[in-house]
Amino acid sequence: MADMEPPALELLQDRNLGQLGFHGLDGYPRVLPVWFEYRDGEILIASPKGAYKGRALAADGRASFAVATSQGVPYHQVTVVGDATVERLPEAERMPFVTRQAERYLGAEGGRRYVERWSKGGHPGDGELIRIRPRRIRFSVV
Amino acid sequence: MADMEPPALELLQDRNLGQLGFHGLDGYPRVLPVWFEYRDGEILIASPKGAYKGRALAADGRASFAVATSQGVPYHQVTVVGDATVERLPEAERMPFVTRQAERYLGAEGGRRYVERWSKGGHPGDGELIRIRPRRIRFSVV
Repeated sequence: MADMEPPALELLQDRNLGQLGFHGLDGYPRVLPVWFEYRDGEILIASPKGAYKGRALAADGRASFAVATSQGVPYHQVTVVGDATVERLPEAERMPFVTRQAERYLGAEGGRRYVERWSKGGHPGDGELIRIRPRRIRFSVV
Repeated sequence: MADMEPPALELLQDRNLGQLGFHGLDGYPRVLPVWFEYRDGEILIASPKGAYKGRALAADGRASFAVATSQGVPYHQVTVVGDATVERLPEAERMPFVTRQAERYLGAEGGRRYVERWSKGGHPGDGELIRIRPRRIRFSVV
């Protein structure tokens, strides 16, 4: 996304929570706050194996995503509509992926403590990777 | 919702942005950050007349909603699945509704300045009210 506006890119690389939207298995929409990483034009979200969001997106890959600043007006926000795939995330890739996110969101020390607890002694097992390929990215100031 | 857990109620009454999920008119899901008010067991969201979210929810009222704390782990979050209706919000009700929200989110002084700018001299015209009746409310700590 070489043509993305700089503030949009900034927002995708900062430490705001992402909001993942998808079709629930019951036909109702869902929204879930998630950690995410924006890399090479895709939005990447780690998930435990068999979690609801992964099952729902495997059944219907149509996805949306939003991230916004939360500290008063004007709000900067990025909204995305795209197509998601759900892949196996082998433990050997899952560990560094989650570690990188934990440090981004919680800082070096908080991230370390989080991963220690989360990884159950360094072996959390395989997980899943939700990969959203954006069809449209919109940046707005409201 | 007399049986709601106290931290869930707190989260719905604090000043965190809400996240509104719905089916877009193109069949893709959508997520939008919104101001909201939780009143009498319903989630209320003001919207300009004819805005996309209102048109989409009038076509398909299945909605979701999430609100989460954003300052590090553990995250407290409330997720909602429900049914939305879209009603006219006459100017005489829209003014106090938006004023109350602006003061909640931006404080007394910031709210006053916001409303002054937003209301175009006190006459913003009619708007719309999105009213979500929850079918299920889930509180979690992650």
